[in-house]
Order: sequence, then C-alpha cells, then structure tokens
Amino acid sequence: MMRNLPRRRELTVEEFCAGVRACDITILPRALTLIESNNPIHQRQAETLLTKLLPYTGQAIRVGITGTPGAGKSTFIEAVGMHLVRKGRRVAVLAVDPSSGLTGGSILGDKTRMTKLSAEPNAFIRPSPSAGTLGGVARKTREGMLICEAAGYDVVLVETVGVGQSETMVADMTDCFLALMLPGAGDDLQGIKRGLLELVDVIAVNKADGETLFAAQVAARQYESALRSLIGRQDRLPTVLTCSALEKRQIDSVWDAIQQSFDERKASGELAERHRRQRVRWLWSIIEDRLRQAVREHPDVRAIRAGLENSVLNGTMPPEVAARKMLEAFGLLDGEV
Amino acid sequence: MMRNLPRRRELTVEEFCAGVRACDITILPRALTLIESNNPIHQRQAETLLTKLLPYTGQAIRVGITGTPGAGKSTFIEAVGMHLVRKGRRVAVLAVDPSSGLTGGSILGDKTRMTKLSAEPNAFIRPSPSAGTLGGVARKTREGMLICEAAGYDVVLVETVGVGQSETMVADMTDCFLALMLPGAGDDLQGIKRGLLELVDVIAVNKADGETLFAAQVAARQYESALRSLIGRQDRLPTVLTCSALEKRQIDSVWDAIQQSFDERKASGELAERHRRQRVRWLWSIIEDRLRQAVREHPDVRAIRAGLENSVLNGTMPPEVAARKMLEAFGLLDGEV
Repeated sequence: MMRNLPRRRELTVEEFCAGVRACDITILPRALTLIESNNPIHQRQAETLLTKLLPYTGQAIRVGITGTPGAGKSTFIEAVGMHLVRKGRRVAVLAVDPSSGLTGGSILGDKTRMTKLSAEPNAFIRPSPSAGTLGGVARKTREGMLICEAAGYDVVLVETVGVGQSETMVADMTDCFLALMLPGAGDDLQGIKRGLLELVDVIAVNKADGETLFAAQVAARQYESALRSLIGRQDRLPTVLTCSALEKRQIDSVWDAIQQSFDERKASGELAERHRRQRVRWLWSIIEDRLRQAVREHPDVRAIRAGLENSVLNGTMPPEVAARKMLEAFGLLDGEV
Repeated sequence: MMRNLPRRRELTVEEFCAGVRACDITILPRALTLIESNNPIHQRQAETLLTKLLPYTGQAIRVGITGTPGAGKSTFIEAVGMHLVRKGRRVAVLAVDPSSGLTGGSILGDKTRMTKLSAEPNAFIRPSPSAGTLGGVARKTREGMLICEAAGYDVVLVETVGVGQSETMVADMTDCFLALMLPGAGDDLQGIKRGLLELVDVIAVNKADGETLFAAQVAARQYESALRSLIGRQDRLPTVLTCSALEKRQIDSVWDAIQQSFDERKASGELAERHRRQRVRWLWSIIEDRLRQAVREHPDVRAIRAGLENSVLNGTMPPEVAARKMLEAFGLLDGEV
C-alpha cells in the first residue's frame, strides 16, 4: 500500500537485530522506540530482540550521572562525551526522567543543549522515555542501554534528575556513579543529599573556573575530608575532584577516576557479581511492578481502593486490614472469615 | 476439658483488647504472640484486635536504635530505659532481627543483658519475632509497637541489627532514629554506614569514659564537622553527642536530643504527615510482600523459577522475559504470543 512507505514499514525482529548490530543509525532509534512501546505486540517483539542481542551486551562501561540543578550537567556530559569520542570511544547518552512527559522539557529532550556531541557520528543521545511509573521509565532506559551496547557503544552515560528513587534505580543499572556539585565553601557549602552518599563513586565539583575556581577547590577539599571522617572504611571512599565543563578542564581527570573505579571493580570480580545481582533485582522488580499495577488496575480493587487508602491515612483502619481487603478483591485471598 | 487449663484457655478478642488496654502483664505477651502467629485464624483475630486498639495508638515517641557491633547497644538501652522509667515514663523495647530464629541468640533474646530494666514494672522488653522474611519480621514488630502503645507505653524503643534493609524498615515505623557509635579518632575513626546517614537524627558516641573518653570527644567533634560539610541544608543535621552507657553519663543529653527532634517534628506537623506516609507505605509493602510470596509459592512458578533465575543470573535471558514467564505461570498474564 502507498501509505506504507518503505522507510516506515514495520521491521522484523531479524531486521531490527541486524540493524542494531550494524549500528544502523536509522534503525537504532526505531529499536529504542520499539522497546519503549506499551503495545503488547511490540513488547513481545522487544523481548525477542533483547534476547537475541543479550550476548552482545555487558561490554560497555555504564555510568550514572546526577547533579544538583544548575550544576551544569548537560555541559559536563557534552564535555566528557567529546573527550571520550576524541579518544576513539563510542558514547551513548540516555536519561531517566519520570516527569519527562509531564513537563515537556525533559532532560536531554533538548538536544540543542549538546549540539557538538549530538553531531558526532560516534555519539548517540536519547531523551528519557516519556512519563510513566518511575519503574517503567527506568526499565525502558535499562533496555535502551542494552540496545546501545549491542550496537557497539562502549560507554553509556545515564543521566538522572535525582527525583525520588530515580538515583537508586540508575545506580542499579550502572557500574559507577558520578555526582556533579556546585562550588561553595564553609557555610555556603552546598550539601550532598544523604541518600546519594550510598551510591556515589566520584564527586566532581564543577565550575572550577573564573571567579568560582577557588571556591570549587575549597569545596572539594572539604567534601573529601568530611567523607574521610564520616564514611566507614568498609565502604570504598568516593573520589573528589574539581573540573570545569565550561573550559573543558580536568574533564579527563574526572573520567579517569570513573574508569579507575570501573577497572578495579572489574579486576576484583566485583563487577561481574554486581551485574548478576542487578539482573536478578531487575527480574523481581519487574514482577513486582507488574503485580502492583495489576492490583491497582483490577476493577474490584479500584472500586474500594480510595476508601481503604483514606481509612489507612486517617488511622481508622490498620494497613494489614486494608491490605487483606484489597488482596481479596484482587482474588488472591479467599474472603472467608 | 482438663487440658484447657484456665490460664491457657484461648482468649476472645474482647478479652485481649481489655487486657492490653489495662496493661495486664499476663495478657500483653499473649497478645504479642497472637500478632506474631502465622496461623490464619490468629491473623484474623490479630487484625480485629489491632483495629479495636488503633484509636489508642500513636501517642508514644517511637525511637529506632542501631549501632555497630560492640558499641554497647544493650547497655545503652538499659541505661536510657532506666532514665526514662525514673522520670515516670513507661518504656517498651522491641527488636527487628530477621536472623533471630536462625542463630538462636537474637538481640534482646537474652533478657539477662538488661536485668535491671526487665525487672522494672514500667518497662516491657520483647525479643524480635522469630525468623521470617525481613518484611514479615518488621511488620510483626510494627504491630507489636501498636499493641504496646495501646497498653499505655509512651516510649517505644525499636532496636535493629542493621542488616540489609532492617534499618530502613525500622526508620519507617519510628519517629526518630539514633545511631550508637564507638570512639576512635583521626584515621581510627570508625565510619558510618552510608545508608544510615539518610535515616539518623542523633549520633551518640558511646564509651565516653575511662581511657576512651578523649577519643570519644574527638570522634564526636569530627563526625559533627564532617556532617556539617557534607549534608545539604535541605536536610536536618543530625545531633552528635558523647555518652557513657556504662557510667550512665550524658544518657539524659542523648535522650533530650531525641525528644527535641520529636517535639520539633510534632510542632511543625511533620510528625503527623510522617505517620500518614508511613501507614500508606506499610499498606503497599504488605500487599507487595504477600503478592511476592504468592508468586514464589505458586506451584507452577516453583516448577520453573530456579531455571529462569539461573538464566537471568548467567545473562542468557533478559529479566523481562523471565518475569513474563513467571507471571504467566502465576496466571496473571495469558500465555498467547
């Protein structure tokens, strides 16, 4: 039919697979769109595709990146991406932003913020899958990461907005985690979110340039000494550095610190173990996500859910009782007393 | 029948309710045993009992307590418990230890470690519910806390072993969280587990006595300055103190810091909001726990689970595919392609 123009005709899984493996730049984005689709037929195709591509994944270095608003994440990612491309590496940039469909202005949505990197043949930038549950958005990003790896990208940078559990979910799909901070010293020192300390391997104080150079250096020293006092030696101490994404200074040092923590994990066998644990956690988080969704969408549950949640919120019904009533409505428990 | 001796006959829910409200010390432990039972009939009775008692809960100050091994948790809890009892307060001590049934030697299992406090009429000590899933153990402890509140205990101390997610689960049932640390200074400074920093309101360096007095003071100052450098001002900074549980020194200061963070939260309305959020999180965590359990125990899932998990571990099957197969076996998804 005329409406099915050749370039938009549906691809078979085999064509997707071959196109991704060849890093065909017209097919790769379509494979990612397939992965992100909520259509059950596409989801089955996506599963088959992922299974076929799985043997070609796991060779990249996967880096999670977060940063306080205004820390210059886009500028930094462009700078580090360009640094890597120049060194002959192939860089994919993905994002987890559960709000992307809501706000319109998602992180990485605006490629103009990374004009140089997006023009590089050896770089690939993909905005966050549009809004859904955080679990769903993260899952699609994780699958997108595997597709990119099968396409031969050997560095995957996963940006996160740092909302809710998004940092934890990104850490659960990556090998190393970087936090980008703003300068500041003494009482002006901007803090690190408590939950972030668990995850981070490298802290880079950006804007070590111009008038904020000294402040950035002082801040880095303060962070470093504070971390040394505070964090147990059972944990690996994060590396603290300064950099200037604007002036492209010390971008290589920041990358080297990331690469080093990756190399150490790989050499010690910790990386392989981490990947194994991550995969099984993903398996169960997908199961739980779908179960939770099935419960919430069940018509008999929907009929009573708001009332029960309210009673629990107000403290007039114990959570245990409301949980049983919902599970009964879902058909999991029999209703007998 | 002769075998049903009067004191061991089954109590009605009404009798449990009246006995708990009167803080009848022969009935209270039986109510907790009822709550901890895995027998479905007992579970229904427990739900009814909890519903009846719910209006009498929520008035206590709920404190989570963790500490590195050897930090002197038992000695500290006895000291702070005695301090509170002397001030006319009624203190319940509970524990979350998912390993308790396995090791035999659970925390609080050995009341002889708190001989003075356990002899106090206004104190009640209950060991951890015996082993099960961490979620199950935590849920029973949380319900036990409500029973104790309905019995009029106005301070509930919940001890945790700090394994896995146990600290997070305890924080999710309490109002304030205390970490007990050991002295040490400079390079000897023992670190704080990264995940703990998210949760803790008060850090007490114990053993500020004898030869370790100075080291404890130095450690406290170091922790405090490190926290000030590191943690964002969007977060409340933990209070850092020293104490000696052995010599009963500064136990009152540690308690006052806990009470103050509680009072501030209560006055600002944050406490009520925290309770509301905690209750809804418990509701969904119970639902998820039971769903996960139902999936794992389903005969068709059991038949395939180990094989699928292995394929995911080895990286030969994407988690998405294994998840779908298990959900199909569970009967949630239809098996059509």
